Amino acid sequence: MKLRHVTSARQFDIKTLQDLFAFTDKIKSGKYNNKALSGKIMATLFYQPSTRTRFSFESAILKLGGSTISSENAAEFSSAIKGETMQDTIRIVDSYADVIVIRHPQSGITDLAASYSKVPVINAGDGVGEHPTQALLDLYTIFEKKKTKEFTIAICGDHAHYRPHHSLSYLLSLYPKIKIIYVSPKRLSMPKELREHLKKKKIHFVETEDFTSSIKEADVIYQGRIPKEYLGAQYKKYLGKFILDKRALSSIKKNAIIMHPLPRVNEITPDVDSDPRAIYFEEARNGLYVRMALLLSIL
Amino acid sequence: MKLRHVTSARQFDIKTLQDLFAFTDKIKSGKYNNKALSGKIMATLFYQPSTRTRFSFESAILKLGGSTISSENAAEFSSAIKGETMQDTIRIVDSYADVIVIRHPQSGITDLAASYSKVPVINAGDGVGEHPTQALLDLYTIFEKKKTKEFTIAICGDHAHYRPHHSLSYLLSLYPKIKIIYVSPKRLSMPKELREHLKKKKIHFVETEDFTSSIKEADVIYQGRIPKEYLGAQYKKYLGKFILDKRALSSIKKNAIIMHPLPRVNEITPDVDSDPRAIYFEEARNGLYVRMALLLSIL
Amino acid sequence: MKLRHVTSARQFDIKTLQDLFAFTDKIKSGKYNNKALSGKIMATLFYQPSTRTRFSFESAILKLGGSTISSENAAEFSSAIKGETMQDTIRIVDSYADVIVIRHPQSGITDLAASYSKVPVINAGDGVGEHPTQALLDLYTIFEKKKTKEFTIAICGDHAHYRPHHSLSYLLSLYPKIKIIYVSPKRLSMPKELREHLKKKKIHFVETEDFTSSIKEADVIYQGRIPKEYLGAQYKKYLGKFILDKRALSSIKKNAIIMHPLPRVNEITPDVDSDPRAIYFEEARNGLYVRMALLLSIL
Repeated sequence: MKLRHVTSARQFDIKTLQDLFAFTDKIKSGKYNNKALSGKIMATLFYQPSTRTRFSFESAILKLGGSTISSENAAEFSSAIKGETMQDTIRIVDSYADVIVIRHPQSGITDLAASYSKVPVINAGDGVGEHPTQALLDLYTIFEKKKTKEFTIAICGDHAHYRPHHSLSYLLSLYPKIKIIYVSPKRLSMPKELREHLKKKKIHFVETEDFTSSIKEADVIYQGRIPKEYLGAQYKKYLGKFILDKRALSSIKKNAIIMHPLPRVNEITPDVDSDPRAIYFEEARNGLYVRMALLLSIL
Repeated sequence: MKLRHVTSARQFDIKTLQDLFAFTDKIKSGKYNNKALSGKIMATLFYQPSTRTRFSFESAILKLGGSTISSENAAEFSSAIKGETMQDTIRIVDSYADVIVIRHPQSGITDLAASYSKVPVINAGDGVGEHPTQALLDLYTIFEKKKTKEFTIAICGDHAHYRPHHSLSYLLSLYPKIKIIYVSPKRLSMPKELREHLKKKKIHFVETEDFTSSIKEADVIYQGRIPKEYLGAQYKKYLGKFILDKRALSSIKKNAIIMHPLPRVNEITPDVDSDPRAIYFEEARNGLYVRMALLLSIL
Repeated sequence: MKLRHVTSARQFDIKTLQDLFAFTDKIKSGKYNNKALSGKIMATLFYQPSTRTRFSFESAILKLGGSTISSENAAEFSSAIKGETMQDTIRIVDSYADVIVIRHPQSGITDLAASYSKVPVINAGDGVGEHPTQALLDLYTIFEKKKTKEFTIAICGDHAHYRPHHSLSYLLSLYPKIKIIYVSPKRLSMPKELREHLKKKKIHFVETEDFTSSIKEADVIYQGRIPKEYLGAQYKKYLGKFILDKRALSSIKKNAIIMHPLPRVNEITPDVDSDPRAIYFEEARNGLYVRMALLLSIL
C-alpha cells in the first residue's frame, strides 16, 4: 500500500503500519540520518489552535532537510476570511508546497482538500472527525512499550467529540486480540458509525461509566478530557469521577502504561507524572519520529 | 534598469518586463535550478490577512535556497501595537533580513518603508494603492497565453478600491496596442489619478457598466469582486449583474482567457472552473515563478 | 562559566561577558562565518507581541545555518488556551527543538520552563521581570562605543515595570566604577529587590525625578517610556518632562551616547535620530550579533 493523502486512520492496513513503525524505530534509534527531504516544502494551514502538532510536523520536515511555510492562524489570516473556499485555497497552495498539513474545525474537510490537491494532504485534526497521525503515534507507543498485540485498553473521556479516540479506535480495530473498554459518561459515548465499524470488525469492546474498575483491568490506560460544555446540568454528577490521580495509581496494573494525547488539564494530576507507568510525554515525543517516517513514506 | 525596491507597477519599463518574463520562463521550464539565494533571509511583515501572497513569496525564496522570518499578524503582534512607526520598524528589520515584503492597510506606506530601508522592500499590497507583484504575474500570464501585445482586456470589479486593478493598469499602459474596458458600477470607477495617467499615455480605454457586452468583446476577461459595502443602497440595483457563470461562457470568445487575482467569492461560479479558458489557478501558480525571478533580479 | 539556560541577567559574571562580547566582536566584524548551527532547530514561543526580538533571534539562528519553528501568538494558538501548563508545553517542545526562546507576560516563568526543559531555554522577556538578552546587547553597545567601564549612565523611564531596566541594572552592577542615575516619577521607581541588590554590590546610584540635570551629567543616556497607565491622575504632572527632543540635545555631553531599547513612542522625538550621538538603531542591530554569539555559546 502506497501512502499519499493521510486523512483518516481507516486508510491503514496492518502491513502499512508494520512498515511505518519499523521505519519509525530506525529513525528513533538514530540509524536513519539523512536529509532525504532537502528542497521539499511543507505548508501548514492551521484553522484551530495548536503548537504541539504543528511544531511536531515542522520539526519533522526540518530534521529531514526540508522547510516550511506556516499559517498559525489561518482562520483569521488566510483568504478564508474573505469567503474563499477550501477548494480554491488548496488549488493554489498545492503549487507552493510539496505537502499540505491541515487542522480545521470542520469534520471531513481534509478529504475535500485531498480531492483537489496535486500534492499530499495530511489531516492534523478535522473537527470531531479524526486525527490520524495522533493515532499512529499512540499505536506506535503502545506496541513499543507492550511488545504485544494482545492487550486490554481503557479509553477514557469524550468519545462523542474527541477525534483522537476515533482515529485510535480505527487503528485498534485492525488487531483482533485487543479488547477496548470505552469509559465515559453515557452522553459522551462514541458515534454510531464507529460502534458499527467495531461490531462489523468483531472487535471485543465494552462501553461503561465505571472508571475505577476499567483502569484496574487495563494494560493500557488512554486518558482524555471530559469537557464540561457537553455535559450541561449532568456535569456535577460526573465531577471528579474520571480523574487519574496518585491515589488511583495503587489500583492499576504494575505493568500498565498511562497515556494521554495531551494537552491535559486536570484529568491526570501532576503527581502522577513521576510514576514510571506515566509515559505521555514520551508518547508525545514519539510523534516526531512517527511523523518523520510518515513524511518519508509519502514524499 | 536595475530593480531594487518594488513598491509600484509604475516603476517598470518594457525592457525590464521583457527581461523579468524571460527569466520567469526559464524558471518555470525548470532550466534555472540553483540555490542562488542560499543564506539570504526574507522578512515578511503582513499587517493584513493573506496566505496566498505570503506563501508564494516564502515558497519562492525557499526554492532558491533562502529562508524566512515571518509575521502573519504584524498588526497585532509587532511593536506597531505599542505605537511604533513603520520607519522605526524598518530601520531595525533591515538589519535582520536581506529583503522585506510588506502588506499593509495604508496606501503608500511601502514607499515610506523603502525610503528608510537599507535592504530592498517589496510591496505585497498597500491599502487601496497597489499590488505590483500581482500585476506582474497577471501580465506574465496574459503574454504567455495570448502570445501577443495586441488585445482587448475587460477588467471587471471595483476599480476604486481594488489595488490589483491599479497595478495591472499601470503595466498595461506601457503597451499602446492594448485596449482596456473597465467594467464596474459607476460609483466604483477608477481613481482620477489613474484615468489621467491612461489619457496621458494615450491608452485606448472605455468605462462602462455593461458587463455582458464587455466580456463578449474581450480577449482577456479579468474578473474581480464588487464589494457590497461600497455600494450602499445601490447594491440591489447591481445584484448579480457582474457574475461570470456557466451560462455566460457561451457568449465569450472561443480563445478568450478568464482570469481573477483571487480569492474569489461568487463572482465566478465554480461551474466555470472546468472550462479550458478559465486559467485563474494557473495564473496564481505563475505567481511563484514571477516572484522567484523578481527576487533573483533584486538580490 | 558554561552557559545553558539564560533566564536572568543575574547569571552572568565579568569573565562570561568578556568572552561573549569578544565573540560578538568577531561575528560583527565578519571574521566568524560558518554554519555551526546547521541542523539545529530553535522554537520561539511568544505569548506577547514582538517582532524585533523574535526576528532577531530567528535571524541569528538562520545565519548560523539552523532553522526555526515559531509561534507568533502562543497565547491564543498554543494549547495554553486549553489550559495546558507551561511545564507540560515545555516537556513536549523540548523534543522538537534544540533551544526554546520564550516571551511571556508572567514574571519568572522562564525559570520554571528551564527547570523542566531538556534543552536550553532563553528568556526573551517575562512580564515585569527580566529581558536578559536586551541587557546583553545594551551593555555590548555601551562598551563598544565608550571603550571604558567607568562612566555615568542615566536610565530614564519606568523602573517599576520595565524589564530591560532590571536586566541592564544587574549587568551594570558587576562593574564598580559605573555610576547609575535612575530617572523616573517617584511612583515608577525601581523594585525593592533591585535597590537592595545595588546596595549590597556597593554600586554608586541615585534616584531622581530631575530629567534635565541627569541627562546633562550622563555619558550614556538610556531612555525609556513613561507609561500613562501606571501614573493615573499624576500623569498630567509629568507630561512632557521626560522627553528627549532636539532642544535637549544642546545640553548633553558632546561624546554622550543616546540609547533606547525600542520601540519608542514619543519619548525620543524623530528630530533626534540624525544626531550622531543617537545610536539606538545601531544598538538594535547589535542584538543580532550578540544573540548569534549567545546561541553559539549555548549550543
